[in-house]
Amino acid sequence: MRQVYVNGRYLPEGEATVSVFDRGFLFADAVYEVTAVLDGKLVDFAGHLARLRRSLKELGMALELSDEELLAIHRELVRLNGIDEGLIYLQITRGNAGDRDFLFPDPATPKTVVLFTQKKKLLDSPLAARGQRIVTVEDLRWRRCDIKTVQLLYPSMIKELAKKQGADDAWMVRDGLVTEGSSNNAYIVTAEGAIVTRDLSSDILHGITRKAVLDCAADLEMTVEERPFTVEEAKAAKEAFSTSASGFVNPVVEIDGATIGSGKPGPVAARLRQIYLEKSRAAAI
Amino acid sequence: MRQVYVNGRYLPEGEATVSVFDRGFLFADAVYEVTAVLDGKLVDFAGHLARLRRSLKELGMALELSDEELLAIHRELVRLNGIDEGLIYLQITRGNAGDRDFLFPDPATPKTVVLFTQKKKLLDSPLAARGQRIVTVEDLRWRRCDIKTVQLLYPSMIKELAKKQGADDAWMVRDGLVTEGSSNNAYIVTAEGAIVTRDLSSDILHGITRKAVLDCAADLEMTVEERPFTVEEAKAAKEAFSTSASGFVNPVVEIDGATIGSGKPGPVAARLRQIYLEKSRAAAI
Repeated sequence: MRQVYVNGRYLPEGEATVSVFDRGFLFADAVYEVTAVLDGKLVDFAGHLARLRRSLKELGMALELSDEELLAIHRELVRLNGIDEGLIYLQITRGNAGDRDFLFPDPATPKTVVLFTQKKKLLDSPLAARGQRIVTVEDLRWRRCDIKTVQLLYPSMIKELAKKQGADDAWMVRDGLVTEGSSNNAYIVTAEGAIVTRDLSSDILHGITRKAVLDCAADLEMTVEERPFTVEEAKAAKEAFSTSASGFVNPVVEIDGATIGSGKPGPVAARLRQIYLEKSRAAAI
Repeated sequence: MRQVYVNGRYLPEGEATVSVFDRGFLFADAVYEVTAVLDGKLVDFAGHLARLRRSLKELGMALELSDEELLAIHRELVRLNGIDEGLIYLQITRGNAGDRDFLFPDPATPKTVVLFTQKKKLLDSPLAARGQRIVTVEDLRWRRCDIKTVQLLYPSMIKELAKKQGADDAWMVRDGLVTEGSSNNAYIVTAEGAIVTRDLSSDILHGITRKAVLDCAADLEMTVEERPFTVEEAKAAKEAFSTSASGFVNPVVEIDGATIGSGKPGPVAARLRQIYLEKSRAAAI
């Protein structure tokens, strides 16, 4: 049985609970991170920690745990659950104030800290081999998508919508320009071979895998343009792909029914996936 | 000790918990209602039930409980906790699928149903006597504010911001036009005596108290204009007020530092509060 971390204790998953008064449950007043585990080690962990700290700061939440303590909890969960390949989910909420009130509780209220693991085949991915089919939808989310909060209802709704339409995922579009995928950043490769992905702003999540993959592209002397692109531009692209902590680099072969490139995963995505995995596995801790 | 309802059981509040895998906790995949209790009876309960059903339908969530069962739980909580005056909070989530996945779980997954009470003086309100000070902020919420979801982080942030600025609440503004308050609908009274409040759309919550108060205004042969208004229009208004299930009709005396009317709660808000309370207490069940 899976062991889950809740506020200092390692518990069997069936006993892992939070109060109904927890602000994560009542107000979605919580942030999260998902870290990949490969070879029993944490991938891009420093990046996830840095983004977690940024999310907490943006929301005025002070966390009682140090980076070292967070690392130790991650490692203990990997050990307890025998995770060789998979994910670790971390969520921090503003805690349980004992009742419901929109106003923030006393800052001394302990944050709620929850972590759990998921065993998952990440490397040998049938989706990466086949390529994703994408549908596009209007981006109706709040305007601080740079903060990784648990306000994930809309991403969840559009992922479900994509599935109902026989697709694998949805890309969101604001004012005619692609923002990002339901839980990943979005990229195209132009006829000239340039990799295009939306520039960082409050409109998108500042992906940890995004940064690492763009570093790989720079190492490979690929041209990168950080700018918004339209759905039409994406449909006419030579290649398209997404990046995320759990999907690494995931090729896209269809957008709103239009075939991308040859209709098969493209060489740029394949190369970036390979190089990213080599680099990040070597650097995993 | 307060008794809380969780999935068919009445529990002491300290034991009222949900799984960390609950979709309300992980994805804010949940809706809620707050019903006022006066004289030990439920105010506008039919309206809250109808809106709950609408929210559930918009999110594709089928609830196993009937309206009669929901009423019975509300009444049992009033009885158990001896609530003469206060609130009952109800939250329904898409349940606990046993793990984290953006995709909706099997529809057979039981919804999580949580209800709790809050003892509160609602009738004798110092804030209603003094009048609220409001600050305005940009409306950064998602674009389906007509669904009463628990994605309440932004309303919570702006209520906190208002408090830090010495105000009581914040009104949100989209494209220069007031949408609504952090947890209430917003109104002004023009120089000509017309009551103006934003028309219903996906930009605002379809307030149950809003509807009841507009019915009162119609009974009193007051002129009502359902249309957006600007912050400048609000600052120049003869009166301003908000409505909500917990605040009823709550006068506003200041907006962004500008005094509204005489700087004291106005006669229209006072009259509507009185008539609304008379009518809703008589109709409470």
